[in-house]
Amino acid sequence: MIDYNQWSEIRKVVPLVHQITNPVTVNGCANITLACGGSPLMADAIEEVEDIVSKSQALTLNIGTVTLPLWETMQKAGKTANRLGIPVVLDPVGVGASRFRQKVINGLLEEIDFAVIRGNASEIATICGEVSGKGVDSEQLEVEEYRKLYRTFAEENNVVLSVSGPIDYVTDGEREAWIENGVPLLSQVTGTGCMLTAVTGTCLGAGMDPFTAAVLSLGAVGISGEKAAKRLTEKEGTASFQVYFFDEISLLTAEDLKREAKIRIA
Amino acid sequence: MIDYNQWSEIRKVVPLVHQITNPVTVNGCANITLACGGSPLMADAIEEVEDIVSKSQALTLNIGTVTLPLWETMQKAGKTANRLGIPVVLDPVGVGASRFRQKVINGLLEEIDFAVIRGNASEIATICGEVSGKGVDSEQLEVEEYRKLYRTFAEENNVVLSVSGPIDYVTDGEREAWIENGVPLLSQVTGTGCMLTAVTGTCLGAGMDPFTAAVLSLGAVGISGEKAAKRLTEKEGTASFQVYFFDEISLLTAEDLKREAKIRIA
Amino acid sequence: MIDYNQWSEIRKVVPLVHQITNPVTVNGCANITLACGGSPLMADAIEEVEDIVSKSQALTLNIGTVTLPLWETMQKAGKTANRLGIPVVLDPVGVGASRFRQKVINGLLEEIDFAVIRGNASEIATICGEVSGKGVDSEQLEVEEYRKLYRTFAEENNVVLSVSGPIDYVTDGEREAWIENGVPLLSQVTGTGCMLTAVTGTCLGAGMDPFTAAVLSLGAVGISGEKAAKRLTEKEGTASFQVYFFDEISLLTAEDLKREAKIRIA
Repeated sequence: MIDYNQWSEIRKVVPLVHQITNPVTVNGCANITLACGGSPLMADAIEEVEDIVSKSQALTLNIGTVTLPLWETMQKAGKTANRLGIPVVLDPVGVGASRFRQKVINGLLEEIDFAVIRGNASEIATICGEVSGKGVDSEQLEVEEYRKLYRTFAEENNVVLSVSGPIDYVTDGEREAWIENGVPLLSQVTGTGCMLTAVTGTCLGAGMDPFTAAVLSLGAVGISGEKAAKRLTEKEGTASFQVYFFDEISLLTAEDLKREAKIRIA
Repeated sequence: MIDYNQWSEIRKVVPLVHQITNPVTVNGCANITLACGGSPLMADAIEEVEDIVSKSQALTLNIGTVTLPLWETMQKAGKTANRLGIPVVLDPVGVGASRFRQKVINGLLEEIDFAVIRGNASEIATICGEVSGKGVDSEQLEVEEYRKLYRTFAEENNVVLSVSGPIDYVTDGEREAWIENGVPLLSQVTGTGCMLTAVTGTCLGAGMDPFTAAVLSLGAVGISGEKAAKRLTEKEGTASFQVYFFDEISLLTAEDLKREAKIRIA
Repeated sequence: MIDYNQWSEIRKVVPLVHQITNPVTVNGCANITLACGGSPLMADAIEEVEDIVSKSQALTLNIGTVTLPLWETMQKAGKTANRLGIPVVLDPVGVGASRFRQKVINGLLEEIDFAVIRGNASEIATICGEVSGKGVDSEQLEVEEYRKLYRTFAEENNVVLSVSGPIDYVTDGEREAWIENGVPLLSQVTGTGCMLTAVTGTCLGAGMDPFTAAVLSLGAVGISGEKAAKRLTEKEGTASFQVYFFDEISLLTAEDLKREAKIRIA
């Protein structure tokens, strides 16, 4: 069972969410954290990440435009978070797109314990041992086929996997959840994945357990997308959709989540 | 007395405003400069800052995601501006959040003369000698209590302090201004502070004195926020607010400012 | 003759467009690529650009905030693209604004063959041998006067020049096109030029020849700007315009382009 009321905790706790991410979507990640009721702090100077992490309630690491020095910063931030018991989310953006990203991900997985790894089917499959080599969003694996792969990886690594797609999937190795909220328009706006990661970090920072944080963030983003799509008139396009999407998540209540969620837990 | 008509000067002068800032809010800073009638130039390669500064009418330095090399670039840009008599604004984003930021700010204050330092109460108090250590927006100090601290620092350092909060405060050590415009929604959008700094730089670039630039930019942002909030329907959230806010500042006239300003000068 | 139906190819091919650009406008470049039907990939780590380029259908290089290491990355990406026959677009943002930018552009032109160079009149004139030294958008050269200069450069360098302004101009040295679509509001939003470059890259990635890609992207952006301006009410400003502009380009069809284009070819 998922306790939807935990969504309300975010506005009570106002968690400080330290995010090391990419310039493409960093503004959206900060704004969606605020929209959910959290407080974003985007800091990536290696000289200060220890100070910043130690003040935060959650940390997210997003490799969207990772470089060698940023990788080093991420390692330091992640290890600090682990030492202090602060939950960390990994977003392995485009891990199949280059050998360098694969190397970075291997390094991060080796040295940091993650609460949640959030990506699309291709990215998570790559991490779990498949080599897709086709980049971000390039293929939609059949989630069902990969259940075993995902569950084994989650269990062995003591991590929650959060896989977004037409039907989102979450597992901690034992429990599984399928989330059927969302609309295709969400993938026509850059950074929806990165923003999902920001929301997941915000949920963790508010005190949710990793499984609940993964499920509620997917539900919240999917439902907000559905509500935004309903507001869209025929004359409006992807930019109006994006404004409506942010509007909706800034207005989303625990009751909305409970009522609109198409979530199945097994 | 504040001469509100100087707001109209921006569209006549179209000042080139060189801004060294952070990727989180850099797009908003560029757009708000354009919206006010200025011309933004965001350049931070150390190899070129001298050339860029020398073509500009104002310079802003924002430490939102400062790194060691960016700090060096800021020093070079600031010193060039000082040598050429170009006004410089400092935005000490989150100065209390890490020892590194404090060190950067100390270094910048030592080597560069600023026309205006613009931050929230926590940031400005940290600079004036308080050590809050709680990061950006983490506490709202009572502005009144800090009047003496601010005035002394402003006078000793020959700088205008521009402190944003529920009631904004500006002082050059002698004169003081309180600006009561604004709405809480402004703090639910990332980068409002950074954008205030961009507007302050734009005002300086248009030829305003630092005290007037600080007061009018706070008034303009606050009033635009109020007008945006009035346009917002119940079904709209923080993203629509952000669009309306930018709309309103792009339409704001000197007459609007004069009519709507809740500014008290002492 | 321009085959407007090629605009529809973008949504069929869904080209992966690798873009090395600046943090100011990178989000807009990614979103406009999606809006046109392409797939953006913003990657600038030198360790991975070869892998990324080799998966892409087009590459864009934008010097908006170029630094020494980013320049090196661009060289590597550009040479890889040349070797693999992948078309490359250059956006010489503000080339006249600093000696460093001029040096970067000289280096890029020396080592990389570009399909299209896209800039404003001042930037393209600087590249073709004029030294304006006044920075981005600082002067509107009379396009007509520069026809000879542009044509000679295009022919000698086997490149298409795409010059935006009140009347856009395109030449491959032999053919010429004038595009009279567009509205002044487009220049009151930051990054319109960078986004034009993104659209040009997207067109190339969809298989258009460089001349057609340059002309159709200018037409598409100009027409979308006109449609956005028509939607704008008196109470709305530059931010609503920006939303409408992205909306319109996301809805633009080949038929719209054909019907609305004010394009003259000689």
